[in-house]
Amino acid sequence: MVPVRFLLLIPLIALLNGYGVEARIRRYKWEVKNEFKSPDCYRKMVITINGRTPGPTIRAQQHDTIIVEGTNSLFTENIAIHWHGIRQIGTPWFDGSEGITQCPILPGTTFKYQFVVDRPGTYVYHAHYGMQRDSGLYGSIIVGLPDGESEPFAYDYDRNISLNDWYHNSTTEQAVGLSKVPFQWIGEPQSLLIHGRGRFNCSSLSVPSSDPGFCNTTNPDCIPFRLIVVPGKTYRLRVSSLTSLSALSFQIEGHKLTVVEADGHYVEPFVVQNLFIYSGETYSVLVKADQDPTTNYWITSNIVSRPAPNSPGQGVLVYYPNHPRRSPPTIPPAAPVWNDSRPRMAQSQAIKARRGYIHTPPAVSDRVIVFLNTQNELNGRRRWSVNNVSFTHPLTPYLIALKHNLTHAFDQNPPPDGYDFLNYDIYERHPNANTTSSNGIYRLNFNSTVDVILQNANTMNPNNSETHPWHLHGHDFWVLGYGEGKFDMFNDPNKYNLVNPIMKNTVPVHPFGWTALRFKADNPGAWSFHCHIESHLFMGMGVVFAEGIEKVGKLPSSIMGCGQTQGL
Amino acid sequence: MVPVRFLLLIPLIALLNGYGVEARIRRYKWEVKNEFKSPDCYRKMVITINGRTPGPTIRAQQHDTIIVEGTNSLFTENIAIHWHGIRQIGTPWFDGSEGITQCPILPGTTFKYQFVVDRPGTYVYHAHYGMQRDSGLYGSIIVGLPDGESEPFAYDYDRNISLNDWYHNSTTEQAVGLSKVPFQWIGEPQSLLIHGRGRFNCSSLSVPSSDPGFCNTTNPDCIPFRLIVVPGKTYRLRVSSLTSLSALSFQIEGHKLTVVEADGHYVEPFVVQNLFIYSGETYSVLVKADQDPTTNYWITSNIVSRPAPNSPGQGVLVYYPNHPRRSPPTIPPAAPVWNDSRPRMAQSQAIKARRGYIHTPPAVSDRVIVFLNTQNELNGRRRWSVNNVSFTHPLTPYLIALKHNLTHAFDQNPPPDGYDFLNYDIYERHPNANTTSSNGIYRLNFNSTVDVILQNANTMNPNNSETHPWHLHGHDFWVLGYGEGKFDMFNDPNKYNLVNPIMKNTVPVHPFGWTALRFKADNPGAWSFHCHIESHLFMGMGVVFAEGIEKVGKLPSSIMGCGQTQGL
Repeated sequence: MVPVRFLLLIPLIALLNGYGVEARIRRYKWEVKNEFKSPDCYRKMVITINGRTPGPTIRAQQHDTIIVEGTNSLFTENIAIHWHGIRQIGTPWFDGSEGITQCPILPGTTFKYQFVVDRPGTYVYHAHYGMQRDSGLYGSIIVGLPDGESEPFAYDYDRNISLNDWYHNSTTEQAVGLSKVPFQWIGEPQSLLIHGRGRFNCSSLSVPSSDPGFCNTTNPDCIPFRLIVVPGKTYRLRVSSLTSLSALSFQIEGHKLTVVEADGHYVEPFVVQNLFIYSGETYSVLVKADQDPTTNYWITSNIVSRPAPNSPGQGVLVYYPNHPRRSPPTIPPAAPVWNDSRPRMAQSQAIKARRGYIHTPPAVSDRVIVFLNTQNELNGRRRWSVNNVSFTHPLTPYLIALKHNLTHAFDQNPPPDGYDFLNYDIYERHPNANTTSSNGIYRLNFNSTVDVILQNANTMNPNNSETHPWHLHGHDFWVLGYGEGKFDMFNDPNKYNLVNPIMKNTVPVHPFGWTALRFKADNPGAWSFHCHIESHLFMGMGVVFAEGIEKVGKLPSSIMGCGQTQGL
Repeated sequence: MVPVRFLLLIPLIALLNGYGVEARIRRYKWEVKNEFKSPDCYRKMVITINGRTPGPTIRAQQHDTIIVEGTNSLFTENIAIHWHGIRQIGTPWFDGSEGITQCPILPGTTFKYQFVVDRPGTYVYHAHYGMQRDSGLYGSIIVGLPDGESEPFAYDYDRNISLNDWYHNSTTEQAVGLSKVPFQWIGEPQSLLIHGRGRFNCSSLSVPSSDPGFCNTTNPDCIPFRLIVVPGKTYRLRVSSLTSLSALSFQIEGHKLTVVEADGHYVEPFVVQNLFIYSGETYSVLVKADQDPTTNYWITSNIVSRPAPNSPGQGVLVYYPNHPRRSPPTIPPAAPVWNDSRPRMAQSQAIKARRGYIHTPPAVSDRVIVFLNTQNELNGRRRWSVNNVSFTHPLTPYLIALKHNLTHAFDQNPPPDGYDFLNYDIYERHPNANTTSSNGIYRLNFNSTVDVILQNANTMNPNNSETHPWHLHGHDFWVLGYGEGKFDMFNDPNKYNLVNPIMKNTVPVHPFGWTALRFKADNPGAWSFHCHIESHLFMGMGVVFAEGIEKVGKLPSSIMGCGQTQGL
């Protein structure tokens, strides 16, 4: 893991970090390639890292420095990789969000990401360019405590499960449809993946292919995920979701899940039968292998919040020494009712910071921004908008434009801090005719405290509002509260949890509901804040915050080359 | 065509060019997009220009300045567009060959190509990045004489026909196969296109799709090409080929073709029943509508030099006022025998410069380079090599690296000027075990005269040698001769045609044969010289010439941004 030539650097780095000698450099060499894979038995061109999707898991300890030298071996396609949940303190240029913090990485180029994982916890990485994440470019980051420190909960083994949904058409095909007039929706995924493996019902293809490899349930790529447990032992399962679209319910038949971590923060433990998890979220749950050990049990994922026709994602919890291929004798547990958002809201509200690990939020904020999430048509194209502004990427990444004062690189007019609170009926369809598109950004005073209220509303379909998991780069935020209906700016803030709010980087906004967040704008850089549904961001559902640009260090030339940063 | 604001510039430009007032600026705005199209009735994701494949035809007059502002509206994929046959005198940075003269054009970026079309004739343009040309990004450039001048042959109408072959899988899928261990060949094309339209036999699909749009012979995209002629009139047909792989025979049933132009140069007229045309070549043929006008006639293209199973490309020559949809009553004319190279060699040798338009070549050359074309395995991958060097692209385009003296940007060792002439048996399979890959280049003395002998040989298959159309950027060359077998350096030069050789930019090397060229290295820049078969260049079949770099003007920043040209 640590080549000899870097061992010499370690004490120096450790010293510079101000931490103990345990801080190490963890170096990874990745090759990003196009390959055919059959994660759900159906053959598709995907993007792999070192031949795999999901890619290699990054395992490190708190305070370690991660160096990923990623070579783009795609043929004509660029890439960018985001380290989701890593705040990139001091390295805002390595956040990996194309158009925000860097230019895309060209084919043939090796890009060196280097950053410190400053907190323990469960994180993910994934492509952050176009809708490329959906092609399979994603993986996990697991940051343990330094040697000698321990978690505030006990477990015997640590296991990792990444959840995803999976489409058979390519991201280019999806993007063409989403950009078309008339709009062509991507539809529901063809299957759900548990740790990169799903099972598409090949016989459901209206016309089977004559090519036996095209959809083949005996393909080793799609052997269902199996988690082998020793009876009586307790497992920490690190569950992450990087779905393209779907909100999921994760469940292990007959086993309780004790939630202990969310997005890298300790949770005051609570028990669920099924864990609701949204794209971009990570959780640790404790599971005790305390059931009848003579049989195996289903591990399932189910789509909630959308009427999805497909079958659940399925894996198997195998009690050692049962045969791992032995299917459970039962039918998989039923999915929660897809359109009942109450249990999802209840879980959201149940997640509090663990006693002894509470970061108390500032009592008041310096600025309140309310983000109304709406769907609309703009020049005949279906878009998502925030306060009637549909986000577009500039050619020159914000971080570079801001640092080098390239004022023509993006719209210098900031988008609005709110909407027409008084008159906008969130339960009605609105044409939102005054919607515009813009790449303007929110400039935040450095070290100020910012409240963000995410307000959901009716889509362009009657009586319909969706779930949007919003993800903030470069920060964690306190989750102050959730509510149903329109946020009441006079009364709802009184109900904020300022005592033990959880800190997260990704949070759902429930149908017709609101979610209130607070964060300190204390990380110099330019940071994306967006719905983590890949197609929704593509359709404009995001904003950018910038703060403390004058404190940003010298930018590496490796992030340049596009827009106004072109040329010698 | 000429917006008002540019009219003011025209006299100035014309003056600067030293030509008459007729020189104009022709400005095009292109949007390059992904779209679904069905050129041969089978639906495929293609790359269009302004919604079309082939893209818009550029029509200009000699000495005009062409400005193409191309916006890359692909999602994550870069582009570059080469102006094939345009020598780019004074503008070597706008040749459009990615890695040679420019960095790729990033998504969202508008790139402005600006160059003078200094000679009349028939040219083409196409993607020059990865194998992107095969996705449909190509079109024609037709340069007429200045007002008042006329061609040395008479015709009533001028028509354009572009030929192509067509694959159903994507260029990414093809590239993945070609880069794989074990090697996976792209195979023969699924159909042949005449002016962008072909007709795949949908019923030949072993399993028809349930989606009616998937392969539908009533799709308007694949209405066969129809050329309407008035009886008795003479047509100049500008025939170009941009096939991915195939050498073609082009034929119009019952009509003689008089060859009058090749690659922008006038040909001493000769008559053929069928025109052999190789990827990258253009011809003008005169056709008189002198047959029975009560019926229509087949226009066909057939693959030669490879045993291709597919049916010919078919269009219809319609005698006005016959109904354009009326099929000819005959069966299409038979294709030439695919593996008889003699008539192809004969046509090659028949092409001479037209009397009165002969550019006499220098009597002697300053340097002779012999290029042995071989197939081999390199690190388990199937490659093509030239003198045992398989070409790879550098990250920093040569033109920039040379001009800015970035000596680490590519291998400074030049590849060899020859091979083991004495001992290499071109009729045998060779392992070519000492093959390497390199991005080294050939530096030519400015204004020197260079002879190039392209030597064909046996591939890795027994008793097999293929046809390779080699294309030179930035120059035309004199075609001094063709021969069978191994070039005899003592006797064959005595047979060179130094009297009336045709000048071309693309020339075939026939199976087990050689082709001898001469050119003046008089165009400051870095220029690709390569097999025009897309997969062969991808597999390393090319070289780069550089000359007069010190005379190259200031490079535009728009070509930069990659490799060592990254950063502010």
